[in-house]
Amino acid sequence: MQNTDSAKDLVVGVVGLGLMGGSIVVAFLIAGHRVIAVAPLSSDMVEARSHIRKQLAHGEHSELLSMPVDKYLDQLTITEDYSLLNDCSLVMECVIENVEIKKTVFSKIVSAVSQSTIIASNTSAIPISTLQKLVSHPQRFLGIHWSEPAYMTRFLEVTCGDQTDKSYAEWVVELAGLWGKEPTLLKKDIRGFITNRLMYAVYREGLALIENGDATMEDVDKAFRYDAGSWITLMGIFRRMDFLGLRDSKQVLTSIYPKLCNKETVPAVMQEMVDKQARGIHNMKGLFEYTPEEARQWENAFAEFNEDIFKLAAKYPSPVTSLNQD
Amino acid sequence: MQNTDSAKDLVVGVVGLGLMGGSIVVAFLIAGHRVIAVAPLSSDMVEARSHIRKQLAHGEHSELLSMPVDKYLDQLTITEDYSLLNDCSLVMECVIENVEIKKTVFSKIVSAVSQSTIIASNTSAIPISTLQKLVSHPQRFLGIHWSEPAYMTRFLEVTCGDQTDKSYAEWVVELAGLWGKEPTLLKKDIRGFITNRLMYAVYREGLALIENGDATMEDVDKAFRYDAGSWITLMGIFRRMDFLGLRDSKQVLTSIYPKLCNKETVPAVMQEMVDKQARGIHNMKGLFEYTPEEARQWENAFAEFNEDIFKLAAKYPSPVTSLNQD
Repeated sequence: MQNTDSAKDLVVGVVGLGLMGGSIVVAFLIAGHRVIAVAPLSSDMVEARSHIRKQLAHGEHSELLSMPVDKYLDQLTITEDYSLLNDCSLVMECVIENVEIKKTVFSKIVSAVSQSTIIASNTSAIPISTLQKLVSHPQRFLGIHWSEPAYMTRFLEVTCGDQTDKSYAEWVVELAGLWGKEPTLLKKDIRGFITNRLMYAVYREGLALIENGDATMEDVDKAFRYDAGSWITLMGIFRRMDFLGLRDSKQVLTSIYPKLCNKETVPAVMQEMVDKQARGIHNMKGLFEYTPEEARQWENAFAEFNEDIFKLAAKYPSPVTSLNQD
Repeated sequence: MQNTDSAKDLVVGVVGLGLMGGSIVVAFLIAGHRVIAVAPLSSDMVEARSHIRKQLAHGEHSELLSMPVDKYLDQLTITEDYSLLNDCSLVMECVIENVEIKKTVFSKIVSAVSQSTIIASNTSAIPISTLQKLVSHPQRFLGIHWSEPAYMTRFLEVTCGDQTDKSYAEWVVELAGLWGKEPTLLKKDIRGFITNRLMYAVYREGLALIENGDATMEDVDKAFRYDAGSWITLMGIFRRMDFLGLRDSKQVLTSIYPKLCNKETVPAVMQEMVDKQARGIHNMKGLFEYTPEEARQWENAFAEFNEDIFKLAAKYPSPVTSLNQD
């Protein structure tokens, strides 16, 4: 079992340099690792370094760096050559959510790395137990689910597949401290992990309210922003119940449970969006309407908000962590 | 129809001076109204003024006040005499969630006020259509659901009952601008309104994860804090989908919908909490364990966090409001 004493000296690999992969590279660099970044698509090579530089500059602006941006870039190798992964203690796969493509990528990673390397997928859609069948040492395979931008969020979900050796998952959880995360560890490979389960329960209910004409999309968004948004960064849903009172909560739960949406099929509006190739703020076609200017304003607001909420979250750390209690 | 030109000059009433009623009084005072606060329980009279003074001082500390605390207190009458409500344009009922008790309170309010007074309930558990049957002018009755602390959140949910005249609801929504709110308007009286529907969908899923042993309570809370908590104050769930991409969202929704909890009965843990009279941080018995010191730390953290998140939310206003689009 590896330890985290000299954790910064570990070399880590990232395969896939899209939006998510790029920001995971930045998170690893900021944590002090040397990073081998493999571009499975030649086209990713073109923009990767300048994109990573830009995100490092964002990190610098937010006072996350302890050295100049160029010093971090010195620690980064961007390549199409999988064999450079041979020294990595951990390789993070971040390619698109397609089992066939991931299978090809895993076989290339496995041929390059040593037998002690941990391989992790950033998937949030495919069960870890399915993916780990595609590698030669499934006990060393697990899920590490980041949220965007990876270098400026505290979220990290570590998930074991059926065959994962739990001690590797615990090693990752420990390392995640170095990455500035507040990790959760899911020992069972449930579909959607924790966060997607919770969020998609909200989506199901919100979509039902819209579909039934009970509320507008704007009002659903507003209610959630200004109610949940006023406490959620401080405390989760169970702690919130300890604030509101258990008797009242039980009463409201009992009256609302039978009213909640139980649909098993997604409302038509989602297929309509796919059919018209809506990519939201990225192509200004989405659930809401955007002018190019508005789309840019939203992107800028999100970048700025990330920084603000990241600092705010840091001010209110978890007083209790389940990992310490184990 | 009343207008909001001289909105500050309106006199408003609040009946019920518990936690919520007290902080609604503070919100009205800060907005510039003269407030008649009626204590249905003599015991509420004792602490009410000092509690309101303390909250005004909190507002002063957060730079919400434009005059000294005492000037606001000059605008406040605390009484057990319902007849002092006779000049009020709006009376806000904030007593406990019990139809019989509310019925008694409404009859006292109705005998005191003029025929043009709007009567509103802060209920989040009882349908507005049920409550409005208890007053003499049901078309002037509606729901105004605040969140705690009322003077330092942007959330406000205005709900029409079956018999509510929509123009009064729109008048309240307009007034809510003066109160510093981002109101939503629910024209149909659905159980749980918007925010409880969304939140209790999360609770149902979270409780199921715990009940099935899939995740710990701590990890559910952490995942939600650090994932949803990293964007929710900026944008709601539908806007978030426009950020993540509609095609991917549709794919994940489709795979997760059939896995979500559809239970209609509340897990046993909630009844256990009620049986052992757990009141969470208020009596240090709850879903989590607390020492008196920890309970106090949580209360202080929440008061401080309120202020921080309120300011952060103010920095990122809603660029689109559905009300303006109507």
